Amino acid sequence: MPKIVDHEERKKRIAEATWRVILNQGMEGATVRNIANEAGLSLGALRHYFSSQNDLFVYAMELVKERATIRINEIVLSDLPPKDKILNILLELLPINEETKAEMEVWFSFVFYVRHKEDIFDVKNDGIFIGMNKLIDYLDQHQMLRANVDKEMESERLYALIDGLALHALLEPMRVDKEQLMKVLTYHLEGICIGT
Amino acid sequence: MPKIVDHEERKKRIAEATWRVILNQGMEGATVRNIANEAGLSLGALRHYFSSQNDLFVYAMELVKERATIRINEIVLSDLPPKDKILNILLELLPINEETKAEMEVWFSFVFYVRHKEDIFDVKNDGIFIGMNKLIDYLDQHQMLRANVDKEMESERLYALIDGLALHALLEPMRVDKEQLMKVLTYHLEGICIGT
Repeated sequence: MPKIVDHEERKKRIAEATWRVILNQGMEGATVRNIANEAGLSLGALRHYFSSQNDLFVYAMELVKERATIRINEIVLSDLPPKDKILNILLELLPINEETKAEMEVWFSFVFYVRHKEDIFDVKNDGIFIGMNKLIDYLDQHQMLRANVDKEMESERLYALIDGLALHALLEPMRVDKEQLMKVLTYHLEGICIGT
Repeated sequence: MPKIVDHEERKKRIAEATWRVILNQGMEGATVRNIANEAGLSLGALRHYFSSQNDLFVYAMELVKERATIRINEIVLSDLPPKDKILNILLELLPINEETKAEMEVWFSFVFYVRHKEDIFDVKNDGIFIGMNKLIDYLDQHQMLRANVDKEMESERLYALIDGLALHALLEPMRVDKEQLMKVLTYHLEGICIGT
């Protein structure tokens, strides 16, 4: 009897192999051949799932987004107090554990790789800016923002702060560790929220 | 009579050719052969100046740092009022014109390329974090910081804000344009400085 392999499951495993290759060898090592090797598949088998390297990259990056989105939605639906909820959502966007570290390393490598290719993937649209707008709106709806706060500016600032911190935590994991990230985020939120 | 070519001048021109190749083709296109082509030199002539690709990359990146440092030092020595001085220094670290755009695009591409190579260049040490500490100290020495400000946190936050904004200005130049960058920086500085 032929083994039944779940198509989506197999695609996910190939995407994960892609992440590992990017992590270990950088984008220039992420050839279809290397990825097939890492996934334990023949080149032909991999081509059955992804007809081109671009298709594979787009899928692998969408999967990074999807996983982060799932984790964030769980926090959104939790019954944490508003400020803790915000803090925990922001932490999901930072490299604080092996999973998020890998995701962000791959994401940044990909973003600067893809800029010199045809327009295969809209890297701008990672959804984080829209997310930051929603978080600031959420604080506003809960009457938590200070009176002098400009919401548009706060969204832009929070977005830059998060991506800057993510970058620095990847480059200097010893100095910018989880504790430091939490300290900076808490400090920032206290600066824009009414004191509790 | 043989033409006298200034050695340092020639090295700088090769470094600039390296930047152009990285800008147009990404790191994976930045082979010694392509760079020699772009610089209008033979492979042998290029090797006369740089014995390896790594030597060339290190020099090309040091030159990015050197140029930014020179521009910033000019502002430091100017007689602008303190807040304007800070704002202008920060703007030098953002992609607001063709020169700084190219510098930062090359810098980010390089940072994520070099992480998967041997330790050829200490990308963490771009000097910007130390610079941010100095800026916050400068504001403090001029009694311009608000009473509730934590200097360590402000240095970390400003550092993240600057690199996050630089990243977003590269990825979304239409939305995050020079005007928006100045607005966010001014807003941020007003938040930490005593009102004027």
